[in-house]
Amino acid sequence: MPDSTKGLPVNTSQRPHGRLLDELRPIFIRRGVSKNSDGSVLIEIGDTKVLCTANIEHGVPHFLRNQGTGWLSAEYGMLPGSTNTRSDREAARGKQSGRTVEIQRLIGRALRQAVDLGRIGERTIRVDCDVLHADGGTRTASITGACVALHDALDRLNTSAFRGWVAAVSVGIVSGERRLDLEYREDSRADTDFNVVMMEERGFVEIQGTAEVSPFPPQDLDEMIALASKGIAELFARQKSAIAS
Amino acid sequence: MPDSTKGLPVNTSQRPHGRLLDELRPIFIRRGVSKNSDGSVLIEIGDTKVLCTANIEHGVPHFLRNQGTGWLSAEYGMLPGSTNTRSDREAARGKQSGRTVEIQRLIGRALRQAVDLGRIGERTIRVDCDVLHADGGTRTASITGACVALHDALDRLNTSAFRGWVAAVSVGIVSGERRLDLEYREDSRADTDFNVVMMEERGFVEIQGTAEVSPFPPQDLDEMIALASKGIAELFARQKSAIAS
Amino acid sequence: MPDSTKGLPVNTSQRPHGRLLDELRPIFIRRGVSKNSDGSVLIEIGDTKVLCTANIEHGVPHFLRNQGTGWLSAEYGMLPGSTNTRSDREAARGKQSGRTVEIQRLIGRALRQAVDLGRIGERTIRVDCDVLHADGGTRTASITGACVALHDALDRLNTSAFRGWVAAVSVGIVSGERRLDLEYREDSRADTDFNVVMMEERGFVEIQGTAEVSPFPPQDLDEMIALASKGIAELFARQKSAIAS
Amino acid sequence: MPDSTKGLPVNTSQRPHGRLLDELRPIFIRRGVSKNSDGSVLIEIGDTKVLCTANIEHGVPHFLRNQGTGWLSAEYGMLPGSTNTRSDREAARGKQSGRTVEIQRLIGRALRQAVDLGRIGERTIRVDCDVLHADGGTRTASITGACVALHDALDRLNTSAFRGWVAAVSVGIVSGERRLDLEYREDSRADTDFNVVMMEERGFVEIQGTAEVSPFPPQDLDEMIALASKGIAELFARQKSAIAS
Amino acid sequence: MPDSTKGLPVNTSQRPHGRLLDELRPIFIRRGVSKNSDGSVLIEIGDTKVLCTANIEHGVPHFLRNQGTGWLSAEYGMLPGSTNTRSDREAARGKQSGRTVEIQRLIGRALRQAVDLGRIGERTIRVDCDVLHADGGTRTASITGACVALHDALDRLNTSAFRGWVAAVSVGIVSGERRLDLEYREDSRADTDFNVVMMEERGFVEIQGTAEVSPFPPQDLDEMIALASKGIAELFARQKSAIAS
Amino acid sequence: MPDSTKGLPVNTSQRPHGRLLDELRPIFIRRGVSKNSDGSVLIEIGDTKVLCTANIEHGVPHFLRNQGTGWLSAEYGMLPGSTNTRSDREAARGKQSGRTVEIQRLIGRALRQAVDLGRIGERTIRVDCDVLHADGGTRTASITGACVALHDALDRLNTSAFRGWVAAVSVGIVSGERRLDLEYREDSRADTDFNVVMMEERGFVEIQGTAEVSPFPPQDLDEMIALASKGIAELFARQKSAIAS
Repeated sequence: MPDSTKGLPVNTSQRPHGRLLDELRPIFIRRGVSKNSDGSVLIEIGDTKVLCTANIEHGVPHFLRNQGTGWLSAEYGMLPGSTNTRSDREAARGKQSGRTVEIQRLIGRALRQAVDLGRIGERTIRVDCDVLHADGGTRTASITGACVALHDALDRLNTSAFRGWVAAVSVGIVSGERRLDLEYREDSRADTDFNVVMMEERGFVEIQGTAEVSPFPPQDLDEMIALASKGIAELFARQKSAIAS
Repeated sequence: MPDSTKGLPVNTSQRPHGRLLDELRPIFIRRGVSKNSDGSVLIEIGDTKVLCTANIEHGVPHFLRNQGTGWLSAEYGMLPGSTNTRSDREAARGKQSGRTVEIQRLIGRALRQAVDLGRIGERTIRVDCDVLHADGGTRTASITGACVALHDALDRLNTSAFRGWVAAVSVGIVSGERRLDLEYREDSRADTDFNVVMMEERGFVEIQGTAEVSPFPPQDLDEMIALASKGIAELFARQKSAIAS
Repeated sequence: MPDSTKGLPVNTSQRPHGRLLDELRPIFIRRGVSKNSDGSVLIEIGDTKVLCTANIEHGVPHFLRNQGTGWLSAEYGMLPGSTNTRSDREAARGKQSGRTVEIQRLIGRALRQAVDLGRIGERTIRVDCDVLHADGGTRTASITGACVALHDALDRLNTSAFRGWVAAVSVGIVSGERRLDLEYREDSRADTDFNVVMMEERGFVEIQGTAEVSPFPPQDLDEMIALASKGIAELFARQKSAIAS
Repeated sequence: MPDSTKGLPVNTSQRPHGRLLDELRPIFIRRGVSKNSDGSVLIEIGDTKVLCTANIEHGVPHFLRNQGTGWLSAEYGMLPGSTNTRSDREAARGKQSGRTVEIQRLIGRALRQAVDLGRIGERTIRVDCDVLHADGGTRTASITGACVALHDALDRLNTSAFRGWVAAVSVGIVSGERRLDLEYREDSRADTDFNVVMMEERGFVEIQGTAEVSPFPPQDLDEMIALASKGIAELFARQKSAIAS
Repeated sequence: MPDSTKGLPVNTSQRPHGRLLDELRPIFIRRGVSKNSDGSVLIEIGDTKVLCTANIEHGVPHFLRNQGTGWLSAEYGMLPGSTNTRSDREAARGKQSGRTVEIQRLIGRALRQAVDLGRIGERTIRVDCDVLHADGGTRTASITGACVALHDALDRLNTSAFRGWVAAVSVGIVSGERRLDLEYREDSRADTDFNVVMMEERGFVEIQGTAEVSPFPPQDLDEMIALASKGIAELFARQKSAIAS
Repeated sequence: MPDSTKGLPVNTSQRPHGRLLDELRPIFIRRGVSKNSDGSVLIEIGDTKVLCTANIEHGVPHFLRNQGTGWLSAEYGMLPGSTNTRSDREAARGKQSGRTVEIQRLIGRALRQAVDLGRIGERTIRVDCDVLHADGGTRTASITGACVALHDALDRLNTSAFRGWVAAVSVGIVSGERRLDLEYREDSRADTDFNVVMMEERGFVEIQGTAEVSPFPPQDLDEMIALASKGIAELFARQKSAIAS
């Protein structure tokens, strides 16, 4: 990974809680929080808290039947009280928002990289990520936490289907600074916002970069990616230490 | 309250964990779990865990406009991974189940007794009860926990609108025994099932008794109510000690 | 049944039409009103009119397949013009209201007591209760009328699956009086409202008591139940005389 | 009206109940069946029974606001038990069928001819036609009955907004015969099926002719229309005698 | 066909673009516009442009299974930008409008006359008519164009299931004149509006006549039908020349 | 832009139609195809054909009211017959797919960069992109075409609100080759897939890179971006020449 964060004015930033520009928020990963699920994890990244469960069911969607392979699908939701201002309950409105749909598709794509679907037979892994409290970075926390729940669920199957760690983080340009792991106050006023998903020792799984205020130049891209890579390396370490305990 | 539980074979029961027939499961109430809500409580009754939030919004539903009074509405949900077998996400199905609708109407009626709606102006209190883990008694735990969240939310308004404690418990006849606070293994094979909601020093707010297997005789009714009353008295004490801490 | 209604100021009440406190409204039950249904009943209780049909179909819901037993499900609806002010057509809104869902679940639970589902094979009895005109007590009239339609539908099967009469009534406290069988004008200003479902010679099937204005004391409960029991005894007699004719 | 039915083999037909080819089924119109509606009619045409209500509300749809004119909209439904085989409840499915939508649009167009919308101010007349029992011709019975309910509702407004009688009938070619007012057994095997709506002394409001089995020649058209006209003339008489009584 | 258009003041009319009263707009039919469909046609009638595709799938709806016969269903839609003022996207609203449902049922009925469903086995022909630009007559253009797409799709099956040409046109009374093939400016102020569907050499498939402003007399009917027949004869010729090219 | 595509085995590739690795498909942009829209474009990129319209309406969504600024929203749809195998009509299913929602959110974000919303007052620009025929790259073709329609719609407002050209292209790794502008046959077997949106002279608006088969190394990222930049530069030229004509 190129050391492209070198030279950034790390010390002079005014991030909340005095965080450094390339510093993650405090991370807490607790496994086994739901006895009713095959794998379950509560992940807290700063004040963002997501409950991730993974459950393995028999059968696969229609388009995969009789092919001897499995599937993984993910769903995402926010509790109405998790957000700054209470948000509508999607079940009551009868419709998931566009944002919800976009996020759960991202989670599903990311986690399918972490599992060798050919080794689980005609089973479907159902991943659920429910945000209990939101303070920015809920989609990346969901991926990072759900990968641990997925690991534990696959462990029960007693297969070697787990292919490796997948984790994600956001980076953004705020007040002209490239910052790692944006919290809500930062995210809501970022000029550019990236969500990066990586797989350990393999590389990039998904990169989504969006110009919020105005387009960004090519050089930003490399430096954002480098900053994200640094953060994700720490997340892989946290996932593995959670499993070890 | 009549001592009508006298004479029951309390000692010889075979409840899970050796619980006595008139014994509640361990109770845990934690306040302030969601910084984004006006009131928030995590309530655990045995393995049943419910996150309850209360948020106060400006405005009232159409049918109350320009009457100077407020409203309280409640919504209920179960996380897909909270149940024994993963349940469908209602937001994805686009429809709340009949059970969900029935429960959230009960919670709303119960909590409206706890608040003097005439004292909060044209505001709506939005109560959300989301089951993180289900092991029987989720609706009664929701009421008991949400009343604490409601108390805290009203405290912020600086009104005297909180009218008193409302709590709820289930009782049932299982294996011929009248048991307090059924957990899932008991509830799923109960002959008769009661959910009782009371308000401290005021009496009954709601009684719902259902014959699951066969109709029950009149005398059962009194004894079930007495057993529930005993349990709810303890719940009032727990609510108040949660507030005191 | 204890004579707990004794001592009530029966004579001095000001009920509409000079009804006594423990007096039902005029009841009219007509069978065979729909040639297209296996059982059909028009029940009128005062100005409340409900058309109840029962139809027996082959097959059972997914969760009962291949168990050799049957099922009964109930649906409830109000014609838009049946209410005081026209109500929205639920089919046009694309959604049943919470009240509708709650009521049809109650009707289903009540009527399943009346039929030995193990004796009808893998069949589903579909009960429909449609309110043609509403003046209070539509859910209890639905149960009482639909049980007659159910009886007639089972008769066609030539089984002994009919287990006994199920009927229901509402009671409430209005102007400090305990009144039987509330009509709309009474129901809308009741302090407490009970819906009681019983099965003849067997006891209670469902009790739902709700404090509308303020909680009610324990002694009210017994007296309300006694008043309801008296009314339901008359309803059993009316059901049986309808069958006899 | 040309006497184009002359020459048809009226006597030799094999219609159910020995009906003549140009004979309507027995008609029964009862007004005032719903105290809660501004106008209400139970119409029975043979075994087809439809409850029609008309209610006048303040306000008009968005596209008519502030134009000083009124509106009429119609909704149609079939009770699930009204049909030969029980049909799904549209409110439970969450969707009105294409047939329902098509019919209620027809009813609305037909009845809007009967009312001078410029004379009722910014009000909306809500017409509901609910089929209690279906035996063919439910849409035409709905129009014929609802026009009487509409008349009565307008009477309450004390305006001269009622413009005249609108009625409807079906005609069809069955077994090579042109028959008036098809019942279900005829309708289900008709080669050609016409629904004709007329306004008294004014002419045709709507003609819908459909080739069910194979296309029909031009001469059929005139004769079908003449047969329908004859039937509708009788319906106008029945509407007026219902009002007179 | 009777020459009933004789005597109309054909020359003095003030139609847009100087069209004669019995003159169709310019017609353009292009086949094979979508490589992904079994049959596909772009039809332009004046400024009305409809893309019609026909695709043949294995299987039939539930009600036809195991009967060895096929089915044809049609769907219709308007692109949001096709109308004068942008119309809502039905997929986004989650509901097809009543008008859409009515039209696609008409298209389906019309085209089922053109195919011998007994000769295609248990297959379903899916016809889609999507309006790219709307200027009146979209439903009749859909039928006329889709019949060509249907012809081509059946050709691929190598059966003799195509039974003959079906085409449709609108006629109306505008400014007291009987006009053929109304464009939007005419349609929106027509007194009476007819949509007529015919099958070549066989006769009428569907006639839908609606009095928009006031009822119409019997003689109008014959003359409208004659005018429509004349137009449809030209459409048959255009369909056949499109196939020939 | 760095010449990072240098050294790629451009000549030996086996792309369909003998396309070079860095060669776009033939592009065709036609303006003014819908008289009913403020701006309208048919864009064809190879066999992918998208009809893009832009319409300007008064008013803004709720969250922007009374702020004096405008909004742009985009919707996307595929005609059922546009795909290889006919796809369900979303309006009939009553729900937009996750893919549709994801795409239309991308289009909206991209085009909002192209317009200075502060200069159009409280208006909403409604962009519709409807795929008439799909052969890969429908979302990027939609952005590229819709920007031209947006330009024309803004021209009518006579403001200087158009900020510059936005265009998009896909790049992917197929058979180990980095290829520009994937068609369906390529896209369906790509290892990695990027959609890149740029604004002329400003830089990147959105980058979405997804590992389809396995994660990709960091160096791929730069080279993919360079390849996309080259293609987008050509698209800007095509947009401008379309406007010039």
